[in-house]
Amino acid sequence: MEFIQQTFSVDYSFKVFFTRYLFNPANAEFRNYLVSQTTPGLTKKLLFIVDDGVAKAHPALATEITTYLQQIEGFKLAGEIEIVPGGESCKNDQELFYHLVDLADTLAIDRHSFVVAIGGGAVLDMVGMVAAVSHRGVRHIRIPTTVLSQNDSGVGVKNGINYKGKKNFLGTFAPPAAVFNDAHFLTTLPARDWLSGISEAVKVALIKDASFFEWLEENATALVNNDLAVMQELVYRCAALHMAHIGGSGDPFESGSSRPLDFGHWSAHKLEQLTDFALRHGEAVSIGIAVDSVYSSLLGWISTESAERIVNLLVKLQLPVYHPLLEMKDGKPSPVVKGLQEFREHLGGRLTICLLKAIGVGAEVHVIDEMLLNEAVQHLKVNHASI
Amino acid sequence: MEFIQQTFSVDYSFKVFFTRYLFNPANAEFRNYLVSQTTPGLTKKLLFIVDDGVAKAHPALATEITTYLQQIEGFKLAGEIEIVPGGESCKNDQELFYHLVDLADTLAIDRHSFVVAIGGGAVLDMVGMVAAVSHRGVRHIRIPTTVLSQNDSGVGVKNGINYKGKKNFLGTFAPPAAVFNDAHFLTTLPARDWLSGISEAVKVALIKDASFFEWLEENATALVNNDLAVMQELVYRCAALHMAHIGGSGDPFESGSSRPLDFGHWSAHKLEQLTDFALRHGEAVSIGIAVDSVYSSLLGWISTESAERIVNLLVKLQLPVYHPLLEMKDGKPSPVVKGLQEFREHLGGRLTICLLKAIGVGAEVHVIDEMLLNEAVQHLKVNHASI
Repeated sequence: MEFIQQTFSVDYSFKVFFTRYLFNPANAEFRNYLVSQTTPGLTKKLLFIVDDGVAKAHPALATEITTYLQQIEGFKLAGEIEIVPGGESCKNDQELFYHLVDLADTLAIDRHSFVVAIGGGAVLDMVGMVAAVSHRGVRHIRIPTTVLSQNDSGVGVKNGINYKGKKNFLGTFAPPAAVFNDAHFLTTLPARDWLSGISEAVKVALIKDASFFEWLEENATALVNNDLAVMQELVYRCAALHMAHIGGSGDPFESGSSRPLDFGHWSAHKLEQLTDFALRHGEAVSIGIAVDSVYSSLLGWISTESAERIVNLLVKLQLPVYHPLLEMKDGKPSPVVKGLQEFREHLGGRLTICLLKAIGVGAEVHVIDEMLLNEAVQHLKVNHASI
Repeated sequence: MEFIQQTFSVDYSFKVFFTRYLFNPANAEFRNYLVSQTTPGLTKKLLFIVDDGVAKAHPALATEITTYLQQIEGFKLAGEIEIVPGGESCKNDQELFYHLVDLADTLAIDRHSFVVAIGGGAVLDMVGMVAAVSHRGVRHIRIPTTVLSQNDSGVGVKNGINYKGKKNFLGTFAPPAAVFNDAHFLTTLPARDWLSGISEAVKVALIKDASFFEWLEENATALVNNDLAVMQELVYRCAALHMAHIGGSGDPFESGSSRPLDFGHWSAHKLEQLTDFALRHGEAVSIGIAVDSVYSSLLGWISTESAERIVNLLVKLQLPVYHPLLEMKDGKPSPVVKGLQEFREHLGGRLTICLLKAIGVGAEVHVIDEMLLNEAVQHLKVNHASI
């Protein structure tokens, strides 16, 4: 048996910046970053792609960006600032995807240029995929504008678009060149988006950090009351926990089946799809956390009191904890249970679901008892369905 | 300035096997590999995608594969063995690309399944891209069937499809799970494909290994006379040199602008495109090697005798060393010179072209003198245009 063994490592490194008023000329963060990326004698291009929701809420943004860049040598805008529709539906839009690929082609975006995406998680996912496959990967800067994208998806290493209704069926793992979290964008979010992004913080606290969970309990009222300073702390701590997991897990590109960060997500993905994305991702995750927490208590892994604390925090945060689609009907499995199979398929291999051993401690199971699951759902229905 | 630094490494490891009659039941290589990938309790799927040229030349192949797999527990064929058109045009066929994505979806190929591609470089590039983006990357086994793909592209880490005529505009870096080079496939290659794949061996010898160049000179007649044992040695040595460069370069995913393996390729890519792929990749590379070798001698980097040795070897291998599209017309730059700009763009940043300091030693330049280039072309035209 003759063979040649190939072995190598690829090192990845990027910073996530936390700032406010990123394109105010007095703010040096973005400028300093670009200057650090200068190559003498070369003018590098920046292709900006902006979520239309952000563009509407910040009508001066395009002018601010253009003015801001004029002070920086060695960089220039590639073409016009491109506005694209935001929200999950943009990830279904193949025409939009290829329109952006066309832009990368016609504007001669090369592998020393930057594609800069400003928007919510869906726009970041789609633009990230465009950047990841054009010229086998051009540099990509993310500027997430929602709680969810600033504290979770935007600081991670994934991108993706939907294919024939299957969420993220097409995508890659491609770390960004840099991420800039600008808290000012959070101030113009609709209430639903402000609140629903918090569920990822509850999730990561539950599997990783009991003290962060306690902090969330203490600060739930301030969060509901739109306290930006408190939200900034939440975003920072949540992003830090997500990043530490990705960087420290030994499996940043998820070659195995273990995905603790997907706690509460198996049912959430299916609920989003079944409701045709009428539920926000964060709302679906809140329901998924509630179900899997109560399920963990029915397994005897956490106390009933712990499960109640979790559900009560979600309720206090005005997040949903129940949905009728979770229920068995006429003795038949709930339609959400089909999500278990799809989740297994997306993971590949064995079903691996993260549950709770304690607040702050996740642990995995490879099977879900449908009757016990239904008991958890009934418990939430009886106690919290009116929420 | 507040920021979180993310840093991690991803380790890649795969074997390239050299064998003959891969799907003969007596050949244990493929079986042993699959057995090493077994997960207890799990039946893993194999989606086979076969180049139609290979399927025609090996009509029993599908039956052989099906029979071979029946002996292996824990694995099964996903659907039928899929036959796809081969050659560069398959990389322009977006419909075919999405047809294969559809197969990955409908056959529920998950991240523990394998997509197995059997064919020439174009089919491997396209199927590699399908595998790289489905579920953010499913496992991919390559079975290259041409000299070119067995000694170069098939053992590397790139995939890609063309977009609006731009070669490999869309693609990723995604190392395969394993590669199997079966020498038997080489015996049914058309003469042009047998010979043209040798130019990548000449290329890598010139920039990395003078003794391999001498070996090529000594064995040119045997290669032209279809000596399979000699070709197997060529494929092994050439693959080993390519793999050592990729694994040892410190930049396997080409984040920088340096691409010594692209010696002779800047003009080759453009010639292929301008001739609408009437020139084989290997033939275009042969011309590119000849031009850049004579150019290296006109720069005084290598002796005239060395340049002649190189050109003579290519000629002895019945490979072309000149093309009319290389010439200046009416004092205007040759259309191939536009390839320099496109090559720079694909690399990103500064133009970086590998030339020769000696046989076996490459060195980089950042500018090409068009008049000197034309002199090199004229030299080849006058001395070798009849070839």
